[in-house]
Amino acid sequence: MNGATGGKARELHPRISVEEVEEGRELAPKFDGDGLIPVVTTDAHSGELLMHGYMNREALMRSMELGEAVYWSRSRGQLWHKGATSGFTQRIVEMLIDDDQDTVWLRVDVQGGASCHVGYRSCFYRRIQGVGEAPVLADTEGELEFTETEKVFDPEEVYPGADNPTVL
Amino acid sequence: MNGATGGKARELHPRISVEEVEEGRELAPKFDGDGLIPVVTTDAHSGELLMHGYMNREALMRSMELGEAVYWSRSRGQLWHKGATSGFTQRIVEMLIDDDQDTVWLRVDVQGGASCHVGYRSCFYRRIQGVGEAPVLADTEGELEFTETEKVFDPEEVYPGADNPTVL
Repeated sequence: MNGATGGKARELHPRISVEEVEEGRELAPKFDGDGLIPVVTTDAHSGELLMHGYMNREALMRSMELGEAVYWSRSRGQLWHKGATSGFTQRIVEMLIDDDQDTVWLRVDVQGGASCHVGYRSCFYRRIQGVGEAPVLADTEGELEFTETEKVFDPEEVYPGADNPTVL
Repeated sequence: MNGATGGKARELHPRISVEEVEEGRELAPKFDGDGLIPVVTTDAHSGELLMHGYMNREALMRSMELGEAVYWSRSRGQLWHKGATSGFTQRIVEMLIDDDQDTVWLRVDVQGGASCHVGYRSCFYRRIQGVGEAPVLADTEGELEFTETEKVFDPEEVYPGADNPTVL
């Protein structure tokens, strides 16, 4: 079943008509002006949102072939096989695409690992207080509240000497 | 609890240091060169990914105040209070932000409605066959398989005369 075991080459198709893109069975992704498509990655088991990244055409093809998430790192300007350094690879359980085929959804298995370079399980470890139904702690409306309090790993140990990818 | 009921004005803070952005409690979102931040929207109950959109600064502030999702429509070039036409508003249950604060996660309640202009519940109604663990139907590897087969609404009835937002 795994893509790495071979089978017919996967093809990207041209975007001919809105009807075909929205209602068809051909994969015809739209890459933006920088050649990138956004990728939403969730935990296939918990459903939790793990991260939001980008792929270029090569990263998309590699991900499909390998059955593991390969992104394009905008901060490093290179292909990024997620987990190559940390060991926390993201095994693809399912890859979906949206209506106009300009966003990819990866449902992945991280096998107990983390997906955030800061060390948390998910990159989304803070909620905005007082928005929607999220409760407000005293006098802290609009501030961030941590939804994860324990890091899964210590970034200094896992990425020794590496530059932080966060750009101000 | 709902933002519309008032309370302290929510502020966006400057991005001073990587440490403060990643580990701090101040909301300091990064808008890209077009003034936009990507938004991942999931169903707060099922966890399903509903859509991927964008907000500019005003849309973010309006969403926080209103407690409902307000996006920036790139195809129309205007603020887009989701559901204003279709009736399928997205009530915000929780709003989160990621490590480097360049992506927003909305967990929403769509109260039985749909979030996709094509009529499906989710915009992600097609999986790519043969990738990861997704099964391959005979001779269709790399093709899209529909994961939703019933539309929640008929777009022609809900958006009469409207232009399709999908751009080739």
